[in-house]
Amino acid sequence: MSLKLYFAPGACSFVPHSLLEAAGAAFEPLMVKLHKGEQNEAPFRSVNVRGQVPVLVDGDEVITQILAIVQYLDAKFPEQQFLPRETLARTRVLETLAWMNNTVHPTFTHVFMPHKFAGTPETQAELKTFNAKVYAGYLGEIETMARAAAGRGQPWLGGEHFGPLDAYALTLLRWGGFAQIDPTRHEALWAHVQKVAQQPGVARAIERERLQLNLFKAA
Amino acid sequence: MSLKLYFAPGACSFVPHSLLEAAGAAFEPLMVKLHKGEQNEAPFRSVNVRGQVPVLVDGDEVITQILAIVQYLDAKFPEQQFLPRETLARTRVLETLAWMNNTVHPTFTHVFMPHKFAGTPETQAELKTFNAKVYAGYLGEIETMARAAAGRGQPWLGGEHFGPLDAYALTLLRWGGFAQIDPTRHEALWAHVQKVAQQPGVARAIERERLQLNLFKAA
Repeated sequence: MSLKLYFAPGACSFVPHSLLEAAGAAFEPLMVKLHKGEQNEAPFRSVNVRGQVPVLVDGDEVITQILAIVQYLDAKFPEQQFLPRETLARTRVLETLAWMNNTVHPTFTHVFMPHKFAGTPETQAELKTFNAKVYAGYLGEIETMARAAAGRGQPWLGGEHFGPLDAYALTLLRWGGFAQIDPTRHEALWAHVQKVAQQPGVARAIERERLQLNLFKAA
Repeated sequence: MSLKLYFAPGACSFVPHSLLEAAGAAFEPLMVKLHKGEQNEAPFRSVNVRGQVPVLVDGDEVITQILAIVQYLDAKFPEQQFLPRETLARTRVLETLAWMNNTVHPTFTHVFMPHKFAGTPETQAELKTFNAKVYAGYLGEIETMARAAAGRGQPWLGGEHFGPLDAYALTLLRWGGFAQIDPTRHEALWAHVQKVAQQPGVARAIERERLQLNLFKAA
């Protein structure tokens, strides 16, 4: 099998994982156990020197970065229409995807892995608290997008077809549970994410990663 | 004129600014003065509610996010070949562009605008110091890319044509000066950036933004 995906349960690798499953692609799923530090060990570092998932391997080609992997999969499985063909509609999806990836996602990293940004425990603690609040605001923005899409009868965040925005939205809302954010309070987004989770391909990815959607525990 | 670019001198909006100039596009450059806080005032917020540059306006369409703008400009000016046409080569450029945009760039934001990530002065000070070191490492990675490209006789970071990686590399190396990083110590990258700066389109963008490439001052 020439196609492989390195993923970690619950990580942003869920995005390409869902797309591969949605496409019915034959691929080898390779789990990287972050809690055991496998991302920092030689076998995985020899695949991706930066020690990050997702990594897509297609034959001899090793591809990292969600934005790149998603567009590669879109080209490889054009019938899925993961991204719109028309330039402006495509630009709109890429715009939101880039924002999720360069703003929303790294904000959560401050909550989940503050040691990436600061050395002392006090600073790490402040990073967690401060950025959990910022993160809640971003989830509110995605909630607004989900509400607007539903309002105009558009089935998926990117348009008429399931795509990366839907899988990323699921991941980001789910992460909110780790930041003490109750996902059900973002009503339209929670409804959308539950619909996403029921897509057959997405459901297979969720099953393999053994994900629970609502991680929120009241303090 | 239907094409407009909102930019701030020295900001990452330099990337689309350079591409528009390189394409010889007719566009209206609209300066947003960050030091006067114009990004937070009503006129600009009505264009981009997030208060960030770059913003590309094409007729009635308002497009944000470098990754989206670059691909939109690539589609609009195909003769420039800002991005490779072939899927794998294009994926490689997008991979590096996404990394610059979601990792290198936000690391610098911790040095330049630590208040975006933390509230107290002590934490902000630690963020500056810690991330300036991380940033230096990332510039080292871009230096390695520049060296490799030069080694194989490839004129630009993305291949045979000037493109977004070259303009972003210039911006990121220039920012290093604010993080006490001497750009000339990254020899291959400094050489590449100087070549980039001499491209006629890039030179026009530099002139409009009144940029000095080497901002480093020995402590």
